[in-house]
Amino acid sequence: MNNFVIVIHAGAEKVKPGELPAEKEKAYRKALSQALQAGWEILRAGGSAVDAVAAAVQCMENEPLFNAGKGGSLTQRGETEFDAAIMDGRTLKAGAVGGIRFVQNPISLAKVVMEKCKHIFISGTGAEEYALRYDLPFKTPDYFITDEKRKAWLEKLQESETTEGHDTVGAVALDQEGNLAVATSTGGLTNQQKGRIGDSPVIGGGTFADNEVCAVSCTGEGEVIMRGVLAHEVYALVKYAGNSLQQAAEKTIRLHNNKLQGDKGLIALSPAGEVAIAFNTGFMKRAYRIGSQEPVVALWEEE
Amino acid sequence: MNNFVIVIHAGAEKVKPGELPAEKEKAYRKALSQALQAGWEILRAGGSAVDAVAAAVQCMENEPLFNAGKGGSLTQRGETEFDAAIMDGRTLKAGAVGGIRFVQNPISLAKVVMEKCKHIFISGTGAEEYALRYDLPFKTPDYFITDEKRKAWLEKLQESETTEGHDTVGAVALDQEGNLAVATSTGGLTNQQKGRIGDSPVIGGGTFADNEVCAVSCTGEGEVIMRGVLAHEVYALVKYAGNSLQQAAEKTIRLHNNKLQGDKGLIALSPAGEVAIAFNTGFMKRAYRIGSQEPVVALWEEE
Repeated sequence: MNNFVIVIHAGAEKVKPGELPAEKEKAYRKALSQALQAGWEILRAGGSAVDAVAAAVQCMENEPLFNAGKGGSLTQRGETEFDAAIMDGRTLKAGAVGGIRFVQNPISLAKVVMEKCKHIFISGTGAEEYALRYDLPFKTPDYFITDEKRKAWLEKLQESETTEGHDTVGAVALDQEGNLAVATSTGGLTNQQKGRIGDSPVIGGGTFADNEVCAVSCTGEGEVIMRGVLAHEVYALVKYAGNSLQQAAEKTIRLHNNKLQGDKGLIALSPAGEVAIAFNTGFMKRAYRIGSQEPVVALWEEE
Repeated sequence: MNNFVIVIHAGAEKVKPGELPAEKEKAYRKALSQALQAGWEILRAGGSAVDAVAAAVQCMENEPLFNAGKGGSLTQRGETEFDAAIMDGRTLKAGAVGGIRFVQNPISLAKVVMEKCKHIFISGTGAEEYALRYDLPFKTPDYFITDEKRKAWLEKLQESETTEGHDTVGAVALDQEGNLAVATSTGGLTNQQKGRIGDSPVIGGGTFADNEVCAVSCTGEGEVIMRGVLAHEVYALVKYAGNSLQQAAEKTIRLHNNKLQGDKGLIALSPAGEVAIAFNTGFMKRAYRIGSQEPVVALWEEE
């Protein structure tokens, strides 16, 4: 029996100690603990890494604090649009959705795509229609929009071109059978253009898993992560350059520092259960739990 | 002055000698020559690799024989939907569009996204609206649909779940300044689901360029190419595993042969001007020209 492990994140952003209200910090830690627990319980019971990452991400999608599912960022139009992907490191099967609305849990749709669809990436209304076919729960636009995200959108509208919103969520897991999986889900950027797709649903960009090498979920500026193909860069540095997982994670965050400027963070997990976390923002909401050890929840770099 | 090089493809598929009518073979060779020439002229005149790959791909989009722009495959709904991407190896900037209709040249929209947009990947109606903003030419649905592709669709409709359509087009180029670029464009699969996105617009999947390593454009079963992140795999094998470009291209086509079964082909180009071509279908429409040498146009494996 392998030792099972789960690692989750809920986004990297430039926040300094003192800038974060104590109440919000507490709420972040609680929400991270709950999502971690949801995935961990599945692994402990002998469930699959795929089911564990889906459960942890679904939990964070339902949490209005995070920018995925309920609580997603608003586009220029004042609407929410979601991207998500899941990948099974055992089979290299994957499912991804981009630019979707109304589906309560984008990660559940990505999982159905992985399990049932002849395609792996579907977008927009085509993807929403696919969700209807499998009876996935739908919600009205109001369900997804929180006061906090609407306020952020109204502020950004003044500045027209500016965007932000780095609370993408993700999870990587290793189950008792030794299988790796990854799931990532996001509401994108505040004030983003209609139809914009970020790195989360891009296999190799924000999401990648291969049982032989690692599972990786990224967060930060999606455009930069896609251009650098960062999740697959971690894999390449481990597989072909002989780096340890933590070395690979750190090098990937620094890759082409001049050309790929921007906020970047990632979590990674090896088939041996090694956990790697790297980010350049000073702050990343994250948590992990190795087997029956105590869970670790952290926000700041020095934690 | 570097020697300039351009390589193009118009898809890999399982065709055996004798299965292809002589007239169609002749038409393929002529269309490849014309697209190659369009890109080559730009390079010879000192133009950029980005402009050269865009011109070659635009030429193939306008050619009804190929599955990109005019002549695109029909979805389950009997409509055309397009994906395209372009990447500049010098800056690692990229532009990509997915699931778009009406825009005459999807690669031109991808180029505008790369040059003007704060995002790099936009999809569906959001992307079409972006094209309107830059006055890109639009066409009615009928413009894109050829008799041949409509016939292929009607045949596939009977079998409900089957798909095909491997005439994706792509180009990689090295300009006189030593810069690499790549462009890929596709009409997807015959009878594909509405909203399906393939590997072409996925940076690292079907399209990748980095001046220091290589430029790569893939073709074949998009789902398999995305799952293997094949364009970035070529990069990784060259950069980190010390492979020659041709070794990397061949290993990439064979990567996880058991898990990543399907038709695969790719063209690649190194900063030194080395051309690599690999495919597992026995047939790939392709052409290249190195500096002022004679152009090479080929279809079959043994050519």
